[in-house]
Amino acid sequence: MRLRELAEKLECRLVGDGEIDVRGLAPFDEAEDGDLTFVAHPRYLLKLEASRASAVILKEGVSASSKPTLLARDPYLAFVRALHLFYPPERPAPGVHPSAIVGPGVRLADGVSIGPLSCIEEGVVIGPRSAVGPQVYIGRGSSMGADCRVYPQVTIREGVEIGDRVILHSGAVIGSDGFGYLRDRSGARVKIPQVGRVILEDDVEIGANVAIDRATLGTTRLKRGTKIDNLVQIAHNVTVGEDTVIAAQTGISGSTKIGNRVTLAGQVGIVDHVTIGDDVTIGAQAGVINDLPPGMAFWDTPAVPHFEAKRNIAGLHRLPLLLKSLQSIESRLKALEEAFRERWEGALRPEPSPEGKSH
Amino acid sequence: MRLRELAEKLECRLVGDGEIDVRGLAPFDEAEDGDLTFVAHPRYLLKLEASRASAVILKEGVSASSKPTLLARDPYLAFVRALHLFYPPERPAPGVHPSAIVGPGVRLADGVSIGPLSCIEEGVVIGPRSAVGPQVYIGRGSSMGADCRVYPQVTIREGVEIGDRVILHSGAVIGSDGFGYLRDRSGARVKIPQVGRVILEDDVEIGANVAIDRATLGTTRLKRGTKIDNLVQIAHNVTVGEDTVIAAQTGISGSTKIGNRVTLAGQVGIVDHVTIGDDVTIGAQAGVINDLPPGMAFWDTPAVPHFEAKRNIAGLHRLPLLLKSLQSIESRLKALEEAFRERWEGALRPEPSPEGKSH
Amino acid sequence: MRLRELAEKLECRLVGDGEIDVRGLAPFDEAEDGDLTFVAHPRYLLKLEASRASAVILKEGVSASSKPTLLARDPYLAFVRALHLFYPPERPAPGVHPSAIVGPGVRLADGVSIGPLSCIEEGVVIGPRSAVGPQVYIGRGSSMGADCRVYPQVTIREGVEIGDRVILHSGAVIGSDGFGYLRDRSGARVKIPQVGRVILEDDVEIGANVAIDRATLGTTRLKRGTKIDNLVQIAHNVTVGEDTVIAAQTGISGSTKIGNRVTLAGQVGIVDHVTIGDDVTIGAQAGVINDLPPGMAFWDTPAVPHFEAKRNIAGLHRLPLLLKSLQSIESRLKALEEAFRERWEGALRPEPSPEGKSH
Repeated sequence: MRLRELAEKLECRLVGDGEIDVRGLAPFDEAEDGDLTFVAHPRYLLKLEASRASAVILKEGVSASSKPTLLARDPYLAFVRALHLFYPPERPAPGVHPSAIVGPGVRLADGVSIGPLSCIEEGVVIGPRSAVGPQVYIGRGSSMGADCRVYPQVTIREGVEIGDRVILHSGAVIGSDGFGYLRDRSGARVKIPQVGRVILEDDVEIGANVAIDRATLGTTRLKRGTKIDNLVQIAHNVTVGEDTVIAAQTGISGSTKIGNRVTLAGQVGIVDHVTIGDDVTIGAQAGVINDLPPGMAFWDTPAVPHFEAKRNIAGLHRLPLLLKSLQSIESRLKALEEAFRERWEGALRPEPSPEGKSH
Repeated sequence: MRLRELAEKLECRLVGDGEIDVRGLAPFDEAEDGDLTFVAHPRYLLKLEASRASAVILKEGVSASSKPTLLARDPYLAFVRALHLFYPPERPAPGVHPSAIVGPGVRLADGVSIGPLSCIEEGVVIGPRSAVGPQVYIGRGSSMGADCRVYPQVTIREGVEIGDRVILHSGAVIGSDGFGYLRDRSGARVKIPQVGRVILEDDVEIGANVAIDRATLGTTRLKRGTKIDNLVQIAHNVTVGEDTVIAAQTGISGSTKIGNRVTLAGQVGIVDHVTIGDDVTIGAQAGVINDLPPGMAFWDTPAVPHFEAKRNIAGLHRLPLLLKSLQSIESRLKALEEAFRERWEGALRPEPSPEGKSH
Repeated sequence: MRLRELAEKLECRLVGDGEIDVRGLAPFDEAEDGDLTFVAHPRYLLKLEASRASAVILKEGVSASSKPTLLARDPYLAFVRALHLFYPPERPAPGVHPSAIVGPGVRLADGVSIGPLSCIEEGVVIGPRSAVGPQVYIGRGSSMGADCRVYPQVTIREGVEIGDRVILHSGAVIGSDGFGYLRDRSGARVKIPQVGRVILEDDVEIGANVAIDRATLGTTRLKRGTKIDNLVQIAHNVTVGEDTVIAAQTGISGSTKIGNRVTLAGQVGIVDHVTIGDDVTIGAQAGVINDLPPGMAFWDTPAVPHFEAKRNIAGLHRLPLLLKSLQSIESRLKALEEAFRERWEGALRPEPSPEGKSH
């Protein structure tokens, strides 16, 4: 693609030779001849000049290069848009592969593809241009909107509702039973039937090997635009708000409510039945055992405001010194007590040195 | 179902109109007209009255309502039993789907179903009424008892023994190789063959995307009634006792023994070759590095008795104050030392203020 | 197998009756008549004598037994080699199962097996004697070397390069999208296309339900001989060095570089864009937020050198005592101040007791 053409499509101002051919995209330190790159921060401009990239996206009004340049308000965003142009998502050809098993009453809209060896149960509804498969399972009565992408070996159990433009990565399980038991009088565990559903709203993305349990009764819901990384656990009856981001291996226990625009780092754990406010950020490996108010950052187990966590950790790291300092204080105090006692025997109040009494 | 009929099936005493029709089940705050609900605690009785539920299960001898009522010793348990009546687990029709691949010497008892696109290897034995559901893999010589449910996309490797009424959720892998290597003289790792087996006893339930490794030699065993949540790791040669509950994302390392009726919260980690006593409870994200005696609760990394963990954490949170307090003590001590020295120069013993010597 | 024959194959010196028949292998405390066992440490020699094992592997020049014995430089290693002899890895018969779906342009070398219900997309290349399947997915253009083993229900996305003798366990997902988004001016998240690749070098082994993300651009790479346990997360653009071992449920964030011969225990978390030096060991559940220099052991969150972590934890556990000790010091100090003040009113400097001023 000509650089001039790219400038038009990305709505960037072109500086320099627009006739050069852009053959690929790369970070500036890996770029080869023919590549377009980008630099978001002026500190990399010198390295850019040494790079083999043929053209660059730079920030409007801030930076300049000897290379042919596209000027953008947000160079990284423009680069990402260029990636979308160069690597349009692969869409399997529409149609149902003959090896797929499709139950009665399944409704497939225009442009839907069902890959090899997938199993689509009775009554499933799939919206326009959604691509499912291969080796995917979709349970009875589940539905999916338009333009979804379901990668190989996803399991969607029965009664799951999925919006538009949802992406599900391989190994994800949507709608497995919640983890709930009662003990009867003999002490044996009775399984609580898990008969609720899961709703994934528009623009949700779910990572590889994620598990999202169906509600006991009612709904486990992930709202519009929420993105879930690999190996995350979402328990029964959880609600996750809009535009929330949950990093890998985090676990959210039953009935907990996560707000909008929340960021959970990796390996965070949140107990059941708590509420996390909007715009909260929780640091990696934190363990949340209480409601958290909106707009703040938290860390540590149990989670406390981030600055407190850092102060506590700094305190912990100073503990060995503190113990030494305490010993030194104690011996100085003892010396002073003894010196004082030498001068005035018995002058000290009896406690805390009981020997004082006998003097 | 008539309320009167439900009363009989649940063995509850009926108070009020038994002719009303129960059409669904719901928690009282979500109940609609026609729903049966339950209230386990008297504090919700007022809210119950405001609820749209048509009938309620209450605790015998404790509570009353203006709504038609079933009186039960344990209202929640009775409600769960009502759930079982209203939502009987779906059983696929018996038989082997023509798209399934079934090896030689496979023995299927009466009422077994093998779903589409499953692969059952040579010599597998499956007991009465077990339902193995689409896209499952069962390796050579594995066996399963009666009334099991295997959800789509489970992998059961060769030589796994599964009891009666076992439930395996999607994405679970049973019998993967244990993680064991030796270094040879050149330093390269030699894989230790993992040739043992896995036994899942009766009434075990395994969550989505769980991994249970086979033993190196011998057996990885989960005893009767144990329930495992999603994304849990059970390493080679682990033994888990009866009626133990393990929450999501917990990991148990090789050869460790977990007792009976143990509760492990989410994201717990336990090192290899330790023994956890019966009736132990371990709090979320705890890291266990030693044997733990029976009957106690533990938390934190490294895990200590729960009350100690809470005390330690409380101490950690007081550290900033403690540091201030120490500074104040030090300056008071210094002031006292100087005042004392002013009165009697040289009176103090030389240490710990070496300047004292020169006075 | 005769013990004499085994001695030759394992290159061990035989002591005692070489004509006995070895029928199985077992640890000494589980061994039955006919089993060969091993003892690596002299402290177990007494127990060995009580064992029912028929023969034993012992360390050359160190130990002796009344049982027929093989003497080896490394008894455990010799035992593992005996395991390889007794349990040769099962190799499915070469060929493509008729239920497998194989795309155009797929190249399969001699001795390759493709199991039932696997899906091999266009242009995949598989090297000699590699065994794939059943129910495996391999995406367009991926390649695999010789003697690989891919267990059931593995997903390998498009453009993944796999070396020789690589083992992939069930449920592993190789090449899922990295987790990357940008916010546009409206605040909505734009997915960053994940168009890089994954390279797994020779002798890599990947556990069950692992997720390894493809690079955004460039490569996610696991180098020769690295072993990954179950449920591990490897994010986009990570590099893991040679002969590194990563235990279960550990997570490594984007673009982080792990050195050679590193050992990561279970449930470790490492943030993005850090570098872990060669020969580092990181303890279980540690959280790494900085670069770590080579050759050292680390633990705790945030990770510090192992001895510091132990000292900090010991300090934390002494905090309750320390608080008591501080209270005792404070009351002794107060007693001394008051005694001093009684003798010389006003002698104390005004701070930190403001009352001093008024005396």
